[in-house]
Amino acid sequence: MGVVVQNIERADQSVIDRLAACGVATVHEAQGRKGMLASYMRPIYKGARLAASAVTISSPPGDNWMLHVAIEQIRAGDILVLAPTSPCDNGYFGDLLATSAQSRGCKGLIIDAGVRDIADLTEMNFPVWSKAVSGQGTVKETLGSVNVPIVCAGAAINAGDVIIADDDGVCVVRREEAAAVADQAEARVAAEEAKRKRLAAGELGLDIYKMRERLAEKGLKYI
Amino acid sequence: MGVVVQNIERADQSVIDRLAACGVATVHEAQGRKGMLASYMRPIYKGARLAASAVTISSPPGDNWMLHVAIEQIRAGDILVLAPTSPCDNGYFGDLLATSAQSRGCKGLIIDAGVRDIADLTEMNFPVWSKAVSGQGTVKETLGSVNVPIVCAGAAINAGDVIIADDDGVCVVRREEAAAVADQAEARVAAEEAKRKRLAAGELGLDIYKMRERLAEKGLKYI
Amino acid sequence: MGVVVQNIERADQSVIDRLAACGVATVHEAQGRKGMLASYMRPIYKGARLAASAVTISSPPGDNWMLHVAIEQIRAGDILVLAPTSPCDNGYFGDLLATSAQSRGCKGLIIDAGVRDIADLTEMNFPVWSKAVSGQGTVKETLGSVNVPIVCAGAAINAGDVIIADDDGVCVVRREEAAAVADQAEARVAAEEAKRKRLAAGELGLDIYKMRERLAEKGLKYI
Amino acid sequence: MGVVVQNIERADQSVIDRLAACGVATVHEAQGRKGMLASYMRPIYKGARLAASAVTISSPPGDNWMLHVAIEQIRAGDILVLAPTSPCDNGYFGDLLATSAQSRGCKGLIIDAGVRDIADLTEMNFPVWSKAVSGQGTVKETLGSVNVPIVCAGAAINAGDVIIADDDGVCVVRREEAAAVADQAEARVAAEEAKRKRLAAGELGLDIYKMRERLAEKGLKYI
Amino acid sequence: MGVVVQNIERADQSVIDRLAACGVATVHEAQGRKGMLASYMRPIYKGARLAASAVTISSPPGDNWMLHVAIEQIRAGDILVLAPTSPCDNGYFGDLLATSAQSRGCKGLIIDAGVRDIADLTEMNFPVWSKAVSGQGTVKETLGSVNVPIVCAGAAINAGDVIIADDDGVCVVRREEAAAVADQAEARVAAEEAKRKRLAAGELGLDIYKMRERLAEKGLKYI
Amino acid sequence: MGVVVQNIERADQSVIDRLAACGVATVHEAQGRKGMLASYMRPIYKGARLAASAVTISSPPGDNWMLHVAIEQIRAGDILVLAPTSPCDNGYFGDLLATSAQSRGCKGLIIDAGVRDIADLTEMNFPVWSKAVSGQGTVKETLGSVNVPIVCAGAAINAGDVIIADDDGVCVVRREEAAAVADQAEARVAAEEAKRKRLAAGELGLDIYKMRERLAEKGLKYI
Repeated sequence: MGVVVQNIERADQSVIDRLAACGVATVHEAQGRKGMLASYMRPIYKGARLAASAVTISSPPGDNWMLHVAIEQIRAGDILVLAPTSPCDNGYFGDLLATSAQSRGCKGLIIDAGVRDIADLTEMNFPVWSKAVSGQGTVKETLGSVNVPIVCAGAAINAGDVIIADDDGVCVVRREEAAAVADQAEARVAAEEAKRKRLAAGELGLDIYKMRERLAEKGLKYI
Repeated sequence: MGVVVQNIERADQSVIDRLAACGVATVHEAQGRKGMLASYMRPIYKGARLAASAVTISSPPGDNWMLHVAIEQIRAGDILVLAPTSPCDNGYFGDLLATSAQSRGCKGLIIDAGVRDIADLTEMNFPVWSKAVSGQGTVKETLGSVNVPIVCAGAAINAGDVIIADDDGVCVVRREEAAAVADQAEARVAAEEAKRKRLAAGELGLDIYKMRERLAEKGLKYI
Repeated sequence: MGVVVQNIERADQSVIDRLAACGVATVHEAQGRKGMLASYMRPIYKGARLAASAVTISSPPGDNWMLHVAIEQIRAGDILVLAPTSPCDNGYFGDLLATSAQSRGCKGLIIDAGVRDIADLTEMNFPVWSKAVSGQGTVKETLGSVNVPIVCAGAAINAGDVIIADDDGVCVVRREEAAAVADQAEARVAAEEAKRKRLAAGELGLDIYKMRERLAEKGLKYI
Repeated sequence: MGVVVQNIERADQSVIDRLAACGVATVHEAQGRKGMLASYMRPIYKGARLAASAVTISSPPGDNWMLHVAIEQIRAGDILVLAPTSPCDNGYFGDLLATSAQSRGCKGLIIDAGVRDIADLTEMNFPVWSKAVSGQGTVKETLGSVNVPIVCAGAAINAGDVIIADDDGVCVVRREEAAAVADQAEARVAAEEAKRKRLAAGELGLDIYKMRERLAEKGLKYI
Repeated sequence: MGVVVQNIERADQSVIDRLAACGVATVHEAQGRKGMLASYMRPIYKGARLAASAVTISSPPGDNWMLHVAIEQIRAGDILVLAPTSPCDNGYFGDLLATSAQSRGCKGLIIDAGVRDIADLTEMNFPVWSKAVSGQGTVKETLGSVNVPIVCAGAAINAGDVIIADDDGVCVVRREEAAAVADQAEARVAAEEAKRKRLAAGELGLDIYKMRERLAEKGLKYI
Repeated sequence: MGVVVQNIERADQSVIDRLAACGVATVHEAQGRKGMLASYMRPIYKGARLAASAVTISSPPGDNWMLHVAIEQIRAGDILVLAPTSPCDNGYFGDLLATSAQSRGCKGLIIDAGVRDIADLTEMNFPVWSKAVSGQGTVKETLGSVNVPIVCAGAAINAGDVIIADDDGVCVVRREEAAAVADQAEARVAAEEAKRKRLAAGELGLDIYKMRERLAEKGLKYI
């Protein structure tokens, strides 16, 4: 505890943008159905969709001091990702911190705890995915760390990993795997487009994916 | 496990439409305060309101194979109702399955698990009531059953039962009771209209429902 | 149980209005980070913001009889605050009760249980903060009490206390402390305005709040 | 609501006894991995293991009146199974009801709600599997039903179905399938005995069940 | 925050002892089915049963500093009752604090958070009712208050109120009502004894409590 | 997915034994209040206390195939640590797998899911810390991985890390930090012994830890 890692590596912006375009569900599939944060992580408003490099924060329960420290470490295009060291639903982050973060190019916040001033954040177009919404404030007494590995909502996240977030939730992609995952994700998007047309025309997945034989082998009975 | 019942009976469409017009809370009261699914079943967007015949699905946790099987069993006007065999929040259903289901006349999905691609589903006007929203995908390895009796979010549902769903949640009406419940529900709606006017004019429920005497008998004290 | 306190004291309307203008998060900080109800208390629609005097209700699980009794006790500008005597998610309150309450000047409902007819309530502009949304109805068989001290969503609330509610949740201010809290809250709003401008210009909280020295004393290490 | 079914069919006592001997986990497997109640159903003390015919009870939240009605319907060797009509953790059942039930030959209680006086119940050797332990009492004001189909902790249960309960939780077997399930369960017990010896001797499941080839086919890589 | 009330009133020891003898479920009924803490408050070991005067503690999440302050305020026969200002499951209390508290005559701990070293506490016969068991430690950085009114596990508790705790959970009795509640509780115990004998002999509650007529009036049907 | 890492490094057995002697709460403090798994991880019986090297397993929800694979990788003194890829409470592990694991020297199981046959496991002295107890079985259809990094109950765990588990829960220590943490933990144990004696003699923590001055500086008021 009490460490700030100042220089972190980030994925290429072009790769990050390609991942944003694919969205959470597709990226998650593309990397082998892994990296999803827990489903209780919900956006404060609908329609936001982004990808960004993680600036990670490990904070004590009920103490948001490290957010001020982390904001100094932001580069334009980053996202803050905060995990408390034990479960907490306090509102660690509100409109003043959002103003500060946004002025430095921060694209949003992922927080396995609470957020507040959500009417203001919505008006500012500052998206947050959180476990809770709570007006309950915090103190600034105990150190945490910035840009260390954390576990956030059940997922291991390293500083500089790529966070994808949209209405379906939040997914993390390892920085070093980001380019390969973007390739896979785009391939999925292309493949899905063709299938969508056939399905929209009334063709069945049972036929498109040739499932009937394997279902019969497993013993499926029609009665 | 591993059974698909192909021919199920459905309630009359006219009865289904009458139930849709009454809404969840009224229908639930009209059948004696029963049939509500658990309150954690929430719509992915607000404003949808429907009634439809249930095509039921029993699926293993984290396995959505049976959804493909079930879509073939849909008739126009049906709704899919999926219960996992143990608690699971995976995103079993997304925009490709919705495209397929919608092309066959499916009106929506009730799922005691997760759903994904909710931005797409919202744009498609494909309503879903679910326990969770999650980008987390599933496999296609293990059989389940279609159109067998299930327990979904705490309610027993048979294939062909009528599902009513709106912003208040989801309610099930037995197929064979649907006509009688529709009668009762419409009677309630009519009776409520008169009461609403009196209440809007400032008259008290204490007087309209003649509660004062019974409250006094029970011992209510004003101080 | 079974008591209705008829004459309760309320805070000055001017004080209540000042608290409404400051909002939940600010008021909560202004009174020393206390008074927040549990974060599971969520509004049925976004954008409502109010302050009002509490008419409190203690009700048995699954029994909404006392709501009728409480509505008679409302004065224009009050808010109903209901706590069940044990955890319950039933829909105690719907459009008929809302029509009645609204006709008597009630500004909304805080309920540590369920609410229904939320599409109607939204159209009526009748805001509710609740633990659940549920079509599941209740009975009218057992007495509770009105305007007695209750614990609602983890907070102790007395009749006549001021309830502040917005998208961040619900906060209670003791009636006798309301004027002093309003002073503190307005002072906070003023102080935050200046800070917001500096933060928006890119200045860091670390510098504005002079945190660097204390962080170093506590042992924070930059690497 | 408000119905008591007086004459229910039960499975043969010899079949019930055979199921008790096999235990919950084995019976559940033997009938195709179905019938388990939710894992939150826990025994008030360890070591009890039984099978019995269900006398079912549907009760309003916070109202235990129907337990008195149900006790009259008990035959020696039955078990009470109570589901509230909406979630509730009240202590519906304590030492007086247990004394009454036990005097009529009742073997225990399955309750998707709370129980109390557990120190007394333990001393009486009256086992209970419940969602909660709570001293919080109930009222006797509203009717429910006895020996109607219920959903208890996520499982559909009919009067006369066989309940198996031990430290692993609670499982229900349809009355009409009980004999066949007992056969399957006993076959499993016999088969497991041989495997247990080989496993105890250090042989691997990978070899006993011949899994290596199929794992390789699926693509498992050793590195 | 930051206040220690040093001189609190306590109920008579003889009254406290009488309440202990009656137990949680009976005391709760005797005072009108009120005062139970939430059912998630469970004892770390079974068989403890006590009544004691509350020394209350309001603590920030993850900060146990005030426990040291509170222990100085204990008189022999008191019990510590801690509520965090927002939900927290940290292990605030372990064997060292228990040693200290016990040396001053403290009879146990009620904590709406976590406890640790439960093997040691069990050996010491120091009973704890808690929301969680957790090895996760706390800091000592932020003030709370001692002997102020708190809300603990959903119940309002004042310093000096009587806490009753046993295997059924925890109940609070107002200090000023303690003597009257003890009278009522002892009357209940006496009345129950006679009923227990009749029930054990096989007589039905339906007859002892003369319920049959009222059930018929409400419409109960036997079929 | 689908990878088995065969050769993992482990900490020295002597270090592991020293950590076991210190226990969870002490080890967790000694490494800077980190490494605790979520407090919902509870032992199936009380009194077990161990330290062991982790053989990690990542499994799909409801699929326990990888446990058979993992058992082959066990060396005497290891512990199995399983995390499902999404939340699941199925009983992945029972007496047959325990027999197999125990025959190869396995000391226990940590599982962020369910376990069954707990009466047998208790008799076998095979300790398990789990999120749930459930008779609900699993399938063997989908690959997972063995000895890869996992997140289990909120904590990141690598193969070969040291797991400490007792009645207070489960804590992980990085393999490479294990010796240093053992030193710190033993120093804590020694220091606590002296304090325990002083506290047992009635001396206050306020004086032993010299807290009075700092409390006064923070503004604590005695009234």
